[in-house]
Order: sequence, then C-alpha cells, then structure tokens
Amino acid sequence: MLRIESGNGGPSPTPSLRDRPAKTREGSLERHIPPGELAEVKRILYGGEPRKLDLPTAALSAAQEKDFELQGYGFEAALEQLRRPRIVRVGLIQNKIPLPTDTAVAIQVAALHRRIEEMVGVAAMCGVNIVCFQEAWTMPFAFCTREKLPWTEFAESAEDGPTTKFCQELAKKYNMVVVSPILERDELHGGILWNTAVVISNSGALLGKSRKNHIPRVGDFNESTYYMEGNTGHPVFQTQFGTIAVNICYGRHHPLNWLMYSMNGAEIIFNPSATIGALSEALWPIEARNAAIANHCFTCPINRVGTEYYKNAFTSGDGGKAHHELGHFYGSSYVAAPDGSRTPGLSRTQDGLLVSEMDLNLCRQVSDKWNFKMTARYEMYAEKLAEAIQPFFIPNIIKE
Amino acid sequence: MLRIESGNGGPSPTPSLRDRPAKTREGSLERHIPPGELAEVKRILYGGEPRKLDLPTAALSAAQEKDFELQGYGFEAALEQLRRPRIVRVGLIQNKIPLPTDTAVAIQVAALHRRIEEMVGVAAMCGVNIVCFQEAWTMPFAFCTREKLPWTEFAESAEDGPTTKFCQELAKKYNMVVVSPILERDELHGGILWNTAVVISNSGALLGKSRKNHIPRVGDFNESTYYMEGNTGHPVFQTQFGTIAVNICYGRHHPLNWLMYSMNGAEIIFNPSATIGALSEALWPIEARNAAIANHCFTCPINRVGTEYYKNAFTSGDGGKAHHELGHFYGSSYVAAPDGSRTPGLSRTQDGLLVSEMDLNLCRQVSDKWNFKMTARYEMYAEKLAEAIQPFFIPNIIKE
Repeated sequence: MLRIESGNGGPSPTPSLRDRPAKTREGSLERHIPPGELAEVKRILYGGEPRKLDLPTAALSAAQEKDFELQGYGFEAALEQLRRPRIVRVGLIQNKIPLPTDTAVAIQVAALHRRIEEMVGVAAMCGVNIVCFQEAWTMPFAFCTREKLPWTEFAESAEDGPTTKFCQELAKKYNMVVVSPILERDELHGGILWNTAVVISNSGALLGKSRKNHIPRVGDFNESTYYMEGNTGHPVFQTQFGTIAVNICYGRHHPLNWLMYSMNGAEIIFNPSATIGALSEALWPIEARNAAIANHCFTCPINRVGTEYYKNAFTSGDGGKAHHELGHFYGSSYVAAPDGSRTPGLSRTQDGLLVSEMDLNLCRQVSDKWNFKMTARYEMYAEKLAEAIQPFFIPNIIKE
Repeated sequence: MLRIESGNGGPSPTPSLRDRPAKTREGSLERHIPPGELAEVKRILYGGEPRKLDLPTAALSAAQEKDFELQGYGFEAALEQLRRPRIVRVGLIQNKIPLPTDTAVAIQVAALHRRIEEMVGVAAMCGVNIVCFQEAWTMPFAFCTREKLPWTEFAESAEDGPTTKFCQELAKKYNMVVVSPILERDELHGGILWNTAVVISNSGALLGKSRKNHIPRVGDFNESTYYMEGNTGHPVFQTQFGTIAVNICYGRHHPLNWLMYSMNGAEIIFNPSATIGALSEALWPIEARNAAIANHCFTCPINRVGTEYYKNAFTSGDGGKAHHELGHFYGSSYVAAPDGSRTPGLSRTQDGLLVSEMDLNLCRQVSDKWNFKMTARYEMYAEKLAEAIQPFFIPNIIKE
C-alpha cells in the first residue's frame, strides 16, 4: 500500500538528500503492521482498499520479463434497477526514460515508443479499455534546463505527428482509448508550443486534444519558458467506455480546474504529471483524491519515475550550486474513487502499469448520497469570484 | 500519528460494525514500524511531521487529571528581513457530551460550559492565543432525530446569549480569541435558526459571526430540517494574532467555500465539525489538508468524539431498523499547513486539546513559491461557472 522502495537513483553520484529514493524496501505498512490492525489502518489512511484484480498469468509474466510492476484493483458500485453496471478498465502507465538525455532525439522517441508499446501490450492482456501515459511522455522532462534545442525538437503535431499515428495504431490494434500527453507544435498558430493531451478513440480516430490549463513557475519547473496556459478550456471526451477528461500536471493544484471538467460531465479525470519528491510529495496523495471526492468522479494521477541527467549544469533558483538533474520523479501513480477510497500507489522508482476496474455507476451513486453539486451554491461563487478578481476588490474583513 | 484506539463505544450495546471504535490501542504506525523507516513513512503520508512542542508540565498534569489528551506541534517558516515571525498558538478542542441527551437542557449546557472552561484553562497554560470549539458545542448533535423539542431549546442569540457571554469572560480572562460555534436563534428575523460560529476578540468584544454556508442532506445529517444555508458570506476576522475564518462542517466538502475565505484574506480557517466514521472518515484526512494546500493557509478541522444516545429511536434512510444513536464521532482533529504537512490527529475516542504553534509568514512564503493564486485564471472560471449554472447550459462534450 505504502510503497517505499529502493531503486535506481539515476546516474548522479550526489542526488539531494530529500530526493534520494528511500533505502527501505517496499510495503512498509504490510510488512510491519499486524494483519488484524492493517485493515483498520488502511481504512483510515486510504478509505479502505479496493479489491485486488485477478490478472492473467501471462500478463504478470510479461510484466516481470519486461521489468515493470503490474498491479490491479477493482472499485465496486451498488446494483441498480435501470442502469446496468458500467464497468471499465483503465490503465495508467508510469516509466523512466530508457535512454540518456543526450541521445539523438529521434532515437529517444523511438525507444520510448518501444517501451510504451510493450507496456500497452500487457495492458491489452489485462482487458484495459482506456490507457493514459505520463505527461510529455515522448521526451525527458527537460524544461528545468531552460535551453531550447534540442528539447523543442521533441514537439510534434497533435493531429498528425508520428506519436499520434503510433497511438492510433495501438488504439485500433487493441480496441483501446489512448490518452497521449505530448509537447505539441501548433503549426496553425505560428508554430508555438503547447503541453497537450491527445485523445484517440478505440476506433483509432483522433477524438481531439486538451491543453494544460495551468503552467507552473516553481523551482525547476520553469515551464512558461516553453508554453503558456492552454486555450482549449475543459473539454470532455465521450468514449465508448465512459466520459473522460485530462487535467495535465500542475492543473492538479487548482480545484476549479477539476470542477470544470466535472461540470462538463467527466466521470474519469486523468492527471498525467511529472513531479519530484522534494517539491510535491506532501501534496501528491491529497490533491487528486480530494478532486475525486469533491467532484464525485474517478481521478487518475500519473507521475514518471527515475532521475533524468542533463549534460549542461543548471541552477534551480534556490541558492544552490549548478547541478545536472532536477530530482527524483517518484512515480506513485494511483486511482482515487468518488467515495474517497483509493488504490495503493505504484512504485516510487520502477516502471509500472496500474489496472483499475471501476463501475462508473458509482459516480452518480455517490453524488446522490453526498449532494455536493446540489448544495454547492455555484451562483453565489460565480458572483463572488467575479467580484474578487476586480483590481479594487474590497475583501470582507471584520476588525474590532 | 495514526490514532487507532480503544475507547468508550457509548451507551449502546450494539453500535453498527463500521462505527465501533477500533479495538487496537493507539499509535499503530509508531508501534509497529521501525524508527528508521517511520520518518520516511510519515514524510510520504503526512508531508513530514511538525516538531513536538514542549508544553508546560503543569498543563500536561492538568490534562491528565481532567482526563483529556493534550498534544502540541509547531510549524516553522523561513526568517525574513522585513517581517518578523508572526507566531500564533492555536488550540482546537474536541469533546464528548458529558451528560445523557435526556438531561434537562440547562443542565447539559452548564456541564458543557464547565468542561470547556477546564479545557480552555489548560489551553491558556499552553499559551494558546486563539481557541476554537467543535460545531454546535453546547448541545448533542441531535439533528438526526428530526424532532424539534427539546433540541431547538439549545439555540441561543449569537450576540447576547449565555454562551456568548461565557465565551467573552473566557476571552478576557485569558487574552484569547474564542471561536464558539453554536445553534443560533435569530430573533431579528422571525426567530429562525442558524448554524453559526461566534467570534470573540481577545479583548472580550464580540467581533462578529459567520454562518454555515453549506447544509448537508445526507444520512443522519438531516440538518436542513433545522436551518438553511448561511447568509453571512465569507467574512474573515482580523484579530491581534492573525486573520481567521470559520468554515463550518459540511462546508469542508466545497472547495469554493474554502477559496472565498482565502480570497478575503484568511490565514487560518477553522472547520468545526460533527461527523461519524461510517459516513466520512475516508474524506476527513483529505479535504481540509487539500484546502490548506490549495489556498496557501492553515486549516483546522475539529470533530467531536463519542456516541450520543437518543431516547426515541429513529431511522437513517438506509433501509435499516430504527435505532438510538447515529454512530461514532471519531475526533481526529488536526492542523494542516500550506506546505502540505499536518499534525497527527487527536484521539478517535477521547476528549482532547491540540495546541499548534504556527508562523503565519509561512502562508505568503508558500504562496510565493507555488503561485496557485497567480496561476489560477479566476477570470476564466468566474465566466465558466456563470455559464455552467444556466438551466440550458451546453457542456463541452467531444464525441466521435
């Protein structure tokens, strides 16, 4: 459940203390807490634990052979009279970059395509209907460098770039919806860049794209050097398996961003991310799980793993010396359900595929129980928010 | 850290299974996980652990003698050049009702006043500057019964009721800001009821009041039988020790409610609550902590403890038999900081006082680091939200 593992700390001999993967091996809670107490501990920490899925032996062997973790969990809903269960299997993939960051761009991309292809193959064996990859999955997360070349060469057209074509093939082959977050080159608008998730139907057709709405300016994440706040709003994609949306990375910190995807009807909101231990690990288990609760939907945060090394040293705006890596991407991808429960996280250090079966009927069942949308007083907030953003807004402060 | 304790299950011989306090004794994580791993487990689960406060021996003895838990933690901030540290000590009090619910109203209120008086005395010994009590602290949380008498007799004037006068005395005596959440009788407006927090300055002056903005209609919490959504908006109270706000109970589930207190300038948002295990325990550690993160402020959720027994049986809208209690209030009051860290929770079963020292400079420091307000795009959301609430809103759905 709690994954605290040893692992490859990356090529650097001196990662910062906070970012070094922990030295203990996996499953601290399972290993130390007696079974009689463990269920209660998990109930309090995780809102209970979803049932373990019986995954095919062939898939488990393939994952072991290909050196990635494979976990599966299932969330239940009550039986209804008028709606059949709406069961969907979602796959989240987290991975390291397989090659050093100074390898030729095309070779890095090809290696990532190969790695994802083998992991998606296993997802298909597990009956996954919708798969989502990590943020900017076709490249190292090089924005910490603030260099333009070669990193901007990883950008591709969302509509007909090689990665979209690759994903369309996967989608058709496996009858699987594919969510592919890439660095987008927008030739239609002066060739600028965006951080974009491409959504491909299980038919192989391009459904559309959804751009990252909130861009960080924090620590090594100088991303506005490369792209700005997205202009695609909060689209949701009605697929054969459920209505999905994509809230990319830093949008995780913005409750209104989650809310608007939900207002448009999202039942599953993916959150492909790239974030490091020292910066965000205290926030990671909280924000997406809160969004699942607040919006009566499933949320799926994904984080990459490993430490990426850059040839040219860079500083991090923290007074420290120039260095070659920005820290340890801690994986820990998980799924949170509208009832507040969640799966365990994937490994903090290893590539992994998390398969989650969910009955989407749970969303409306929890909504009818808790009524957050009914009791939310959105009229008041639309008005108050419009007031609060005025330059000469007068806050409601009471003094003696 | 994780408090899983044995305790008084209340007078009923047959509490429901989910709501029975766990049989194991306190400190599951501390007891079982080796010290070398524990720090890492806490870092991942709790964002680290704030330092333990050295509380006066006399206070610790008094708490033991009066049979309540006393815990103290401190949150640090970086030193600045132009602002001195703004250190404040906040006290959260959680408690059982001391007398059976069929005792005469005036006697129940007097017993609660006495209990709180002794706990506030200990808070004063610990140097607490601002104290907050649990929701509707002068009464059993009887709204599950849907009966009017005698429960509505617990309602008092916020301005000059006996409880406000009692709190004013405490405030003056101890130079302490007092947040007193009561059932309010509003004589000015037809004598209707509200769920209201009264805020009293450390001078003893009544600063004002803040009403519960969101009212549950869930399970045994049929509260709209008694009072409706508050009409005091999102006031913040500028006290000598910091700017505070009060988000009562079910308002915890509404991210926009937290946001508006923060937009008005709240540095500490109290969340006096009354909630039971089967209903909300999966949500409890998540929502207030998420609000602290999302709004760059401290949040202080408080929950009562114990099981309250009602003479007349009632049903709970869950198909079950009529019964005499609504479940176990699980305490677990805690403080969450803007950096995502939190204190351990108080006991799940015992009365308690949680003392938290915080340097309020941390709020702006975290805000300047993460920039959630700067990157929040509130203009877009004010507009989108106004659209989304229209009866004939057309959601942004993309289909094949």
